[in-house]
Amino acid sequence: MRIGVLGTGTVGRALSGRLAELGHDVRMGTRDVVRSVGKSDEDFAAWRAAHPTILLERFAVAAAHAEVVVNAGNGAAALDILAAAGPLDGKIVLDVSNPLDPSAGFPPTMLVKDTDSLGEQIQRTHRGARVVKTLNTLTAELMVHPDRLAADHTVFVSGNDADAKAVVTDLLRQFGHTDVIDLGDITTARGAEMYLPLWLRLIGALGTGIFNIKVVR
Amino acid sequence: MRIGVLGTGTVGRALSGRLAELGHDVRMGTRDVVRSVGKSDEDFAAWRAAHPTILLERFAVAAAHAEVVVNAGNGAAALDILAAAGPLDGKIVLDVSNPLDPSAGFPPTMLVKDTDSLGEQIQRTHRGARVVKTLNTLTAELMVHPDRLAADHTVFVSGNDADAKAVVTDLLRQFGHTDVIDLGDITTARGAEMYLPLWLRLIGALGTGIFNIKVVR
Repeated sequence: MRIGVLGTGTVGRALSGRLAELGHDVRMGTRDVVRSVGKSDEDFAAWRAAHPTILLERFAVAAAHAEVVVNAGNGAAALDILAAAGPLDGKIVLDVSNPLDPSAGFPPTMLVKDTDSLGEQIQRTHRGARVVKTLNTLTAELMVHPDRLAADHTVFVSGNDADAKAVVTDLLRQFGHTDVIDLGDITTARGAEMYLPLWLRLIGALGTGIFNIKVVR
Repeated sequence: MRIGVLGTGTVGRALSGRLAELGHDVRMGTRDVVRSVGKSDEDFAAWRAAHPTILLERFAVAAAHAEVVVNAGNGAAALDILAAAGPLDGKIVLDVSNPLDPSAGFPPTMLVKDTDSLGEQIQRTHRGARVVKTLNTLTAELMVHPDRLAADHTVFVSGNDADAKAVVTDLLRQFGHTDVIDLGDITTARGAEMYLPLWLRLIGALGTGIFNIKVVR
């Protein structure tokens, strides 16, 4: 598929790299290509050298090219990033971001209460897009390499469009996920996002982000 | 141990019955004994007949008798129930309740944001008590019979007093729980309570409350 991954951080790199490895036509979106390439970030330069097929474009160019737009940037900037990405009508927006406010230190606090979610905010703002919330409940490494944990574990999808959820679920299975629970419409993103306060305390208790939950039933 | 379980609903009955079965000296607390016994609740009458060793007392009497006071009532009424239970200095308060507002229908919404928790509110209100938040993340049946699920699953403890958490963890192991994660001090109850929006959506998606999460690591 033609996929535009918006965001050049840890999550954006993990998803872009894995999707390209799986044979997808991936472009990575950033706010300002010249600035992204020019900044003295040796890790990113090395990452780009290792992934020469993934073109770095402005948000709008990466999104225009794509059937699936992956929102992999900072959650606090998500609406701004998607506004810069331009019209998203008909596109699947795979939203990985979390509405976290890091300004108060660790653990960050939630920018929404449980009566709304960032997933819904994106869907309300882009009425023609088909938003699917997923993968916001685990660390980047496990999003794309679920087999790094020895036992089976669970990821979730939330969205209003059944076809879009089917496409996203297929991508998740390509990554190696074996247990995908469809929580329901986009309002169920409230559940997936509100899990973050527990996830953050588990990082504190376990001393690692390399874990995920399995829904045992 | 001498245990006072405050609350006569599903959670109170499950915990009282199981604790008595395990040999503990259990009293069940209610606001008004005459009214509780007198109301035309055939289920509760049958439950009481099946558990003749569990005395039904006023909140304050059940709590005064106890080393461990279990807060098993409605979360919206928890502070009121514990105020009625009287001085709790030195006692372990095992807090199972969730800060849910059922007034808007299903799913209920949270009465706290992620910057506070009912567990902390109870600890702030009863400074001499040793509050341990636990078991609020699964349905009553699985709290006391974790082996009803075929695979292993996880419960959490949060609290400021290490000895109190050890006592509670021992009770959890008596119930049959094999994976107990100590999240940290009582502020980590924010994580355990904020899991509820996801738990409620999982009930919707799975059509049952007979599930729990395993933290795979």
